[in-house]
Amino acid sequence: MDAPERPPRATAEMVAKVAKVSRVAVSRAFNPAASIKADKRAHILDVAQTLGYAPDRAARALVTRRSHLVGVIVPDVCSPWESQEIDALTKALQNEGFATLLFKTRTDYSIDPTLLAYMRGFNLDSVIAYTENVRPQTLAKVLGHAVPIYIGYPTGTEVGEAPDGEHLFDSLNVLARDGIEQAIAMMQGYGARSIGYLSGLERSLASVAREQTLRTVLRERNLPAPVMIPGDFTYDTAYAATLDLFRMGEGVDAVFAANDVGAFGVMDALRHELKLRVPEDVMVVGFDDIDHAHWKSYNLTTVKIDLDLRVRALVRLILRRLKNPRAPALEETVPTRLVVRGTVGKRGSAS
Amino acid sequence: MDAPERPPRATAEMVAKVAKVSRVAVSRAFNPAASIKADKRAHILDVAQTLGYAPDRAARALVTRRSHLVGVIVPDVCSPWESQEIDALTKALQNEGFATLLFKTRTDYSIDPTLLAYMRGFNLDSVIAYTENVRPQTLAKVLGHAVPIYIGYPTGTEVGEAPDGEHLFDSLNVLARDGIEQAIAMMQGYGARSIGYLSGLERSLASVAREQTLRTVLRERNLPAPVMIPGDFTYDTAYAATLDLFRMGEGVDAVFAANDVGAFGVMDALRHELKLRVPEDVMVVGFDDIDHAHWKSYNLTTVKIDLDLRVRALVRLILRRLKNPRAPALEETVPTRLVVRGTVGKRGSAS
Repeated sequence: MDAPERPPRATAEMVAKVAKVSRVAVSRAFNPAASIKADKRAHILDVAQTLGYAPDRAARALVTRRSHLVGVIVPDVCSPWESQEIDALTKALQNEGFATLLFKTRTDYSIDPTLLAYMRGFNLDSVIAYTENVRPQTLAKVLGHAVPIYIGYPTGTEVGEAPDGEHLFDSLNVLARDGIEQAIAMMQGYGARSIGYLSGLERSLASVAREQTLRTVLRERNLPAPVMIPGDFTYDTAYAATLDLFRMGEGVDAVFAANDVGAFGVMDALRHELKLRVPEDVMVVGFDDIDHAHWKSYNLTTVKIDLDLRVRALVRLILRRLKNPRAPALEETVPTRLVVRGTVGKRGSAS
Repeated sequence: MDAPERPPRATAEMVAKVAKVSRVAVSRAFNPAASIKADKRAHILDVAQTLGYAPDRAARALVTRRSHLVGVIVPDVCSPWESQEIDALTKALQNEGFATLLFKTRTDYSIDPTLLAYMRGFNLDSVIAYTENVRPQTLAKVLGHAVPIYIGYPTGTEVGEAPDGEHLFDSLNVLARDGIEQAIAMMQGYGARSIGYLSGLERSLASVAREQTLRTVLRERNLPAPVMIPGDFTYDTAYAATLDLFRMGEGVDAVFAANDVGAFGVMDALRHELKLRVPEDVMVVGFDDIDHAHWKSYNLTTVKIDLDLRVRALVRLILRRLKNPRAPALEETVPTRLVVRGTVGKRGSAS
């Protein structure tokens, strides 16, 4: 299928000769992470374009065993939190010379063996697992030299255990405790006693860790254990579960939701179907601080994970691991904090 | 940096021998698009995993000149419309044996030459440009054999011209006319006369095409030309522009927004700051039908582009082009239609 008229491929040597620079300078010009003067880079790229030259990563990958590809395993690209992070991560990785390759898993936490075989074929330099679909021992078998990165949610008491003790993986740990404590303290200050927890998907470690931290904080503050509201991180399930809780159950003074999108579902069910006011009748707090949280219809008080800090920590993990392929498990941590908006406030006041 | 203890790489021949199948069957097992019995595939993948074999795409790419990578050039991954489409596209491409590689451009429609050089290095099989940052003549120089796919918005009168007449590119054409006509007919039926157009980014072809179609439809229906409301596809800009229009200008009876997120900003400014009712005081229609449009706080009447149809058309374009690298420009079209929810209705009625 190859074009017979295709001219012979230009080489880096040809570019170096025409541009009157060294062979090394040509390499540096094509590596976004390499330091080289802007006008020199522009000149070299210009010559390369005229000659039709570009470094062949397929060929280079065979020699260096580096693909410059970072895999991202994600069940749902269009979940707002994940999409914000993939956007920021793609930009940050591009600046370091890596491209982001997306792999979509099933949302039910099962994993397709064809997908794993297929992933291995790309010889990834690193893999970020935004999911509990794949455990490290499974990834280790298919990833060759790459060490996967998992997002961890340490709770201090560690029932939500690390994904695997025996296989090497690196971790980005999200410290949810500070933000959750600030949220509960504020709700308690405004008079909430019975607090509901809108969970995420049942098998999600993030959701389990948030629930556990919430239980600890409530106990420490002499508040009753949370009323469980079964969610799955989606708006529609949160909406229906809220109707169940207030129509068949006793209701609650406040809801702490495992993510912002779930909190929106709770708020809309309270306001539009149950005719209850937020925060005067029921307070609501979310988790993530996605862009939508500041939209006036929601104006949601929520626990924020700083996106920039988080993405920088992920990029650091990738670069640290590539420098030291044999290093023991690496870790980075990111904090959380409460962003105060309009969904926590005085109970029972006039609207 | 290579591990000296790394065992010799398993080959497809070794897998075929151990699994007692043909060499061709091994290839088919690793190609998600190939037809092979499920239990046979499972058996081969199992043997391959035991032996530590996976096809090396880097090596194969050198021989076949196929990378199995489809590039997606996108300014903003976390824009809800793009993220829904990237999610669906990644899944559909995976089923055909391709992986999705994300390239993030600047949101101001400029393009970084380093990014282009860097893209070429991945030897992409296809590129989908979700953006007007890069014109076909620029992409042609850096893409090698890949023919880019552009999303087009034919208006019938074609002021929003095709991105480039001289260079080969394939097109997915979104026919906005039907949906926009339905929206305007409905608003007119409920008594709207002055209709505002909340635009997208100034240089966006999608926004220009929607404006032009709107102008044609308004003229045909004997309605005045649209009142322009300068937006940029974001919530915050739409919110501020709506305040400007109603506080400094005359206001309008109805707003047609270039995308749903902009429509949410309009609605929140009307309701939460201007204390106007939707739809009784001002009607609002969006474009896209993202998931959020059905959230009860918005319940937005909007022009829908069917996501499944659209993604299937994109995948067809990729497969058709790979089969016929020398074919003239390929096209697929997708229709639009109005989804009726709660933001268009009788004017002036009690809330």
